[in-house]
Amino acid sequence: MLNKWHDVLDTYYDEMVEWRRHLHKYPELSFQEVKTKAFIVHCLENVGIEAKPVGGGIVGVIKGKSPGKTIALRADFDALPIQDEKDVTYKSTIPGVMHACGHDGHTATLLGVAKVLQKHRDELAGKLVLIFQHAEETPPGGAKEMIQAGCLKDVDAIFGAHLWSTIQYGTFGFNKGHIMAASDRIEIIIQGVGGHGSAPHQSVDAIAVASQIIAQLQLIVSRQIDPLKSAVVSIGTFHSGSAFNIIADSATLRGTVRTFNEEQSDLIERELTRLVENVCSAFQAKGIVNYNRGYPALYNHEKETREFKEIIDKDFGKDVAVMMSPQMGGEDFAHYVKEIPGMFFFTGAGNPEIGAKYPHHHPKFDFDERAMLMTGKAFLSIVHYYLGSHNGIQDCIQNLNAEYAAKDH
Amino acid sequence: MLNKWHDVLDTYYDEMVEWRRHLHKYPELSFQEVKTKAFIVHCLENVGIEAKPVGGGIVGVIKGKSPGKTIALRADFDALPIQDEKDVTYKSTIPGVMHACGHDGHTATLLGVAKVLQKHRDELAGKLVLIFQHAEETPPGGAKEMIQAGCLKDVDAIFGAHLWSTIQYGTFGFNKGHIMAASDRIEIIIQGVGGHGSAPHQSVDAIAVASQIIAQLQLIVSRQIDPLKSAVVSIGTFHSGSAFNIIADSATLRGTVRTFNEEQSDLIERELTRLVENVCSAFQAKGIVNYNRGYPALYNHEKETREFKEIIDKDFGKDVAVMMSPQMGGEDFAHYVKEIPGMFFFTGAGNPEIGAKYPHHHPKFDFDERAMLMTGKAFLSIVHYYLGSHNGIQDCIQNLNAEYAAKDH
Amino acid sequence: MLNKWHDVLDTYYDEMVEWRRHLHKYPELSFQEVKTKAFIVHCLENVGIEAKPVGGGIVGVIKGKSPGKTIALRADFDALPIQDEKDVTYKSTIPGVMHACGHDGHTATLLGVAKVLQKHRDELAGKLVLIFQHAEETPPGGAKEMIQAGCLKDVDAIFGAHLWSTIQYGTFGFNKGHIMAASDRIEIIIQGVGGHGSAPHQSVDAIAVASQIIAQLQLIVSRQIDPLKSAVVSIGTFHSGSAFNIIADSATLRGTVRTFNEEQSDLIERELTRLVENVCSAFQAKGIVNYNRGYPALYNHEKETREFKEIIDKDFGKDVAVMMSPQMGGEDFAHYVKEIPGMFFFTGAGNPEIGAKYPHHHPKFDFDERAMLMTGKAFLSIVHYYLGSHNGIQDCIQNLNAEYAAKDH
Amino acid sequence: MLNKWHDVLDTYYDEMVEWRRHLHKYPELSFQEVKTKAFIVHCLENVGIEAKPVGGGIVGVIKGKSPGKTIALRADFDALPIQDEKDVTYKSTIPGVMHACGHDGHTATLLGVAKVLQKHRDELAGKLVLIFQHAEETPPGGAKEMIQAGCLKDVDAIFGAHLWSTIQYGTFGFNKGHIMAASDRIEIIIQGVGGHGSAPHQSVDAIAVASQIIAQLQLIVSRQIDPLKSAVVSIGTFHSGSAFNIIADSATLRGTVRTFNEEQSDLIERELTRLVENVCSAFQAKGIVNYNRGYPALYNHEKETREFKEIIDKDFGKDVAVMMSPQMGGEDFAHYVKEIPGMFFFTGAGNPEIGAKYPHHHPKFDFDERAMLMTGKAFLSIVHYYLGSHNGIQDCIQNLNAEYAAKDH
Repeated sequence: MLNKWHDVLDTYYDEMVEWRRHLHKYPELSFQEVKTKAFIVHCLENVGIEAKPVGGGIVGVIKGKSPGKTIALRADFDALPIQDEKDVTYKSTIPGVMHACGHDGHTATLLGVAKVLQKHRDELAGKLVLIFQHAEETPPGGAKEMIQAGCLKDVDAIFGAHLWSTIQYGTFGFNKGHIMAASDRIEIIIQGVGGHGSAPHQSVDAIAVASQIIAQLQLIVSRQIDPLKSAVVSIGTFHSGSAFNIIADSATLRGTVRTFNEEQSDLIERELTRLVENVCSAFQAKGIVNYNRGYPALYNHEKETREFKEIIDKDFGKDVAVMMSPQMGGEDFAHYVKEIPGMFFFTGAGNPEIGAKYPHHHPKFDFDERAMLMTGKAFLSIVHYYLGSHNGIQDCIQNLNAEYAAKDH
Repeated sequence: MLNKWHDVLDTYYDEMVEWRRHLHKYPELSFQEVKTKAFIVHCLENVGIEAKPVGGGIVGVIKGKSPGKTIALRADFDALPIQDEKDVTYKSTIPGVMHACGHDGHTATLLGVAKVLQKHRDELAGKLVLIFQHAEETPPGGAKEMIQAGCLKDVDAIFGAHLWSTIQYGTFGFNKGHIMAASDRIEIIIQGVGGHGSAPHQSVDAIAVASQIIAQLQLIVSRQIDPLKSAVVSIGTFHSGSAFNIIADSATLRGTVRTFNEEQSDLIERELTRLVENVCSAFQAKGIVNYNRGYPALYNHEKETREFKEIIDKDFGKDVAVMMSPQMGGEDFAHYVKEIPGMFFFTGAGNPEIGAKYPHHHPKFDFDERAMLMTGKAFLSIVHYYLGSHNGIQDCIQNLNAEYAAKDH
Repeated sequence: MLNKWHDVLDTYYDEMVEWRRHLHKYPELSFQEVKTKAFIVHCLENVGIEAKPVGGGIVGVIKGKSPGKTIALRADFDALPIQDEKDVTYKSTIPGVMHACGHDGHTATLLGVAKVLQKHRDELAGKLVLIFQHAEETPPGGAKEMIQAGCLKDVDAIFGAHLWSTIQYGTFGFNKGHIMAASDRIEIIIQGVGGHGSAPHQSVDAIAVASQIIAQLQLIVSRQIDPLKSAVVSIGTFHSGSAFNIIADSATLRGTVRTFNEEQSDLIERELTRLVENVCSAFQAKGIVNYNRGYPALYNHEKETREFKEIIDKDFGKDVAVMMSPQMGGEDFAHYVKEIPGMFFFTGAGNPEIGAKYPHHHPKFDFDERAMLMTGKAFLSIVHYYLGSHNGIQDCIQNLNAEYAAKDH
Repeated sequence: MLNKWHDVLDTYYDEMVEWRRHLHKYPELSFQEVKTKAFIVHCLENVGIEAKPVGGGIVGVIKGKSPGKTIALRADFDALPIQDEKDVTYKSTIPGVMHACGHDGHTATLLGVAKVLQKHRDELAGKLVLIFQHAEETPPGGAKEMIQAGCLKDVDAIFGAHLWSTIQYGTFGFNKGHIMAASDRIEIIIQGVGGHGSAPHQSVDAIAVASQIIAQLQLIVSRQIDPLKSAVVSIGTFHSGSAFNIIADSATLRGTVRTFNEEQSDLIERELTRLVENVCSAFQAKGIVNYNRGYPALYNHEKETREFKEIIDKDFGKDVAVMMSPQMGGEDFAHYVKEIPGMFFFTGAGNPEIGAKYPHHHPKFDFDERAMLMTGKAFLSIVHYYLGSHNGIQDCIQNLNAEYAAKDH
């Protein structure tokens, strides 16, 4: 039966590619995804699934013939403020906005899975919840809103996936425990005293002070964080000044902090505040640090992770799901798995031969579209395991339980 | 006769204030002064002076009854990209644009002077050229264009003035030799490699590199310039990055360099280029320095400066024209006095009691409007000296010659 | 039989404390340990063990009654260039030199163990090699010399221990795999141009350039190393200049680099060299980086680590040997376990109540002397396991094998 | 008569060179000049001048035949903590100590002048005071002590000179007003928390903090001092740390500050203190700034400067004494001219052909020894003007008075 679902998905591949490329050409920024949502609603309703707006995103539900568990699959659909620099027919048509992280592929994949399972809903026991989530890229993110609006109600477990260009096409990456970092957002505002560029002694140069802060805050990472712990502080934007010959009276820096636990975030918030205040005092400026806790670290639950490995081993072969290192990137899927059990995996989508060799958020980012098919099949296997009627697999799982328990530390 | 001109100007004071406040309410940026020019043309033609567009500015000519020398007076009329923060009735109505340097006052003053002398043109021997110059604030500046278009043709000497809020109302400031600095414009472009904020090791962080450059370039001023020489390097704008969690792939810095001679400019250009290239190499970025020589240092010619002092002493009293230190600010009047003899003076325009206490280019900059009257009278005295019929003054000048010669070093 | 050896060591405790305090009062720097070696020789010969100088250190051998394996135990004995600031009777009498890392305790412990086992040598099958190693603190270190001189000849496995003040007294810390970092040594020499302090523009200020390098090299750690990898670069000494008013023509920096694998060391060597060369070029100085690879990362072999855990569980109880995080410190015991199997463990030696609360290399470093007894008993248990006659333990070990294999990743 | 004195000095030239080279071979640091003083005493007494120790230096007096004014000439005699790197027969024999500023030449010159005038004392009206001063290089300097001990008692005017390697041999440099800078001494002590090089997060790295301070304090000079004013801050020594792998717990910086007036010194003291305190706070270190006001700016009195010019013009020719820019170096001759009238001039001593091309305080500093003869002759001319019997010169001086008065501003 399983192979049948996989085979059905194969027949939708061209359509998935078409959907993905459509989304790619018309990307929308976080919290502004109007046309994207309309497109998703259209696609779902086309195959007979009722699409409900839930907390900013879209939820569709496929009910099985018989009662059973409730499983959720999630895809996100927002784009990034990056200028598309690819030379392809499906290049973004919106200046300065681009699907540079693969969310277009996630959505096309879940639409394909939805079409398969809606058709085969009689083979399901229980309920499948399709979560199309907005605004993953921009904290506070869409997950929180959708959870508050009830998208996880009665859901027993949730699964999500990310197409990943730095893993070659052909495998899945996964791990239990903390698999993606906590992601905080910082804003630093420096208030100096403006004046004419020729008279620095009558001004307090906000750009000079801000530059000192940027140089010195790296010392928090390299000297104040335990070298055995991971942390990143990156300033992504620096905007200050309106004329070349006027000393800027203020500067605004925005950036991101990544850690794997709260202790490191606390330390960075404390030391960054200390640093900014003191550097500003040194030069008679004033500094404000707004430290906004963002997505928590994404934690893959043990049981679901173990089951995922077993499912993939069975349906794709032993070497397809490989353990990977944690990633410093943040992902608001973290919010779902703080509420209910679940796990998140990565689908290899890199393929240098077709130009899919750039990191996520790069102006030339792209992925091997066959990874959508692979992700969709993994989703189908997961659904089959939890909601299909099958025997024997539980035994295999028991064996795995022992092994994983041993690895716990 | 002279006193008569001064008295006539007094009667136009209310009108000059009105003109100035009109200009103040409708400021226009350099090279975009459309309405301002129309206003000047209107005012000149109103009193019967033909206003000709010359190289982007406006030139009017008043011909005397008898032949004689040709003298030019210059006023500039552009505004700055600064948000007006004053609380006055004549506050700028254009968001983000402001007459924050007093050019509105310069123009109103010269319009007043024009009105007086057009009326009294029969008392003139020779010709008065009224130069209304655009775009003083933004290199390459308007002076160059107007000179190329012929505004100095047959002119024997030129005079200009600046209302100066840091000198109290009631005196003129002047000096011979280099009275304002050379003003160069720099642009530094850093090209790094963008990427996700969580993966700095896969990127070259343009903001981090640019911040290092800003911190280190001050060492050129403090360690590489002879401490007995003056130099300023100020970065006025730093713009980089589009999202808080994306490492910026490029950063653009713009700034100004001030010196009093070419040797210092040469050194700064050379060392800045060396610094940017090496700091970039240190972090595997690429750096480009565009160093644009701007206005040269403004040099007051000896003879005209001596004569100015004598004229003011005679018409305003001995203590009114006082020697002042050179100013680090640049002024494209420098171009005129590289072509023909001339000098530039400063009119005290500060008055804390009426809020005229902020430096030029400050969002609350304002000046004591009576300084327009004072500047106008100085212009009238100058015109009288050069183009009026008078005796005896040459003798006084002879005495001064000796004194000034002695001071030359 | 085992308990008997532990009990015997208890009776030597006062003597061990006396030995340790004697060594503590007369510390000697790496490669200069003349009196220390004489003391060790004296102690060994006192109990009838022949003490041979081997490659700068001392080796004693205890032969068992019957043939068997050959096991080595190692203790180091050099001190540090730190001024002892403790207020104790056994405080260092040598100005500026101090046993601030506990090597005095290591040596006293192994002397105690030697005394027990020399007395009970008839109970041994095989041979025990006692390695007293000089110069652990200073690369290239004493281990390399002693290995080259043959100290590991025919040795089947080696064990070492470190008293550890940041673990409370009462437990052992251990782990398999990389347990201590690779430790490289760097020297950076900046050559500028000297001159008078009042004329910076005629000099190239080596202190200013070196300070820039120190500030910027932390960016290698925080921006160029994968955040999931560990690395430390610390500059320990900065010496430059001879007079307050003379600009120094050179500066010498010395420091340490810690990583857990060669790839990171390679990256740091490459980027540090790039940085120093470019910062120097930016200021027209010359820079040399001498990057000396030091001790490799210390790797605990799996089999010996598993056996250690089993031995301690059996003789001290289940909760005494606890897994610990890797340490960033370097340890030239790494050289022994690159040659033959072996492992290294840490003995909790902290006790705030008696002032043993400072980190290693701190001027007030001290440890709970009972930790010597505990380390000595662990050594006796290890010797008993490998060289004693005993039954049944192999069975326990078999069970453990499976568990450890599972943890391998 | 004057020429006679010059001619007599010529005959002593070989002896002066011998004295100078003797002093050069045996340099002594400030306040430690034992043998140097003995040598001076010996030379003076050799020609019949009583040499009295006065406040750490040596004073000799030559009384003329008839009464008159009292004039003082001053030479300093201390050396510097610099390693002599010249390759000459008279190279310093004292490791790390060197006459790298020419004080050996000053002393040899004044000894020659003394020998001439002691011989010709019958030609003098009045009294000549020969001040041999110790410790010019090291604040608080010898001048203060000697003045307090009475060396200026009844002295009407004082003259001093400096051999100057950056002026070519053959001219004198001079100017009225501030001719050398005020010279303050700073000490910055950073107290961090020591620890092991591998655990930066448990330490406060004094070297890292001190390096930040060095980088940032240049911003005081380049951004907080009026660009039209001169100021220098140079850190000459940075000493911190005892071992490459131990994080240093403290760092000491020593440096010099140069300005031409107290306002700048006040600003630098205030801002440096603010900076050090805040940078330390930013990193949880403690910082202390000891700011010691040193020699004030050296002020050449107008009358004596005018007379010097006249004297040199007359005896050496019109082009020999040339006006020079102020120098940023400090000179404790400043103390004498704060007490009584006087002036200080510079004797060109550079000569690349003989290797006299390095700046003062350079390890290869040397000077053209003929400059001693030239300085000595200038001294003899000065003495002749003030203490010789002569006519007519006063007239010439009158003419100069007018010219100099005019230049006053």
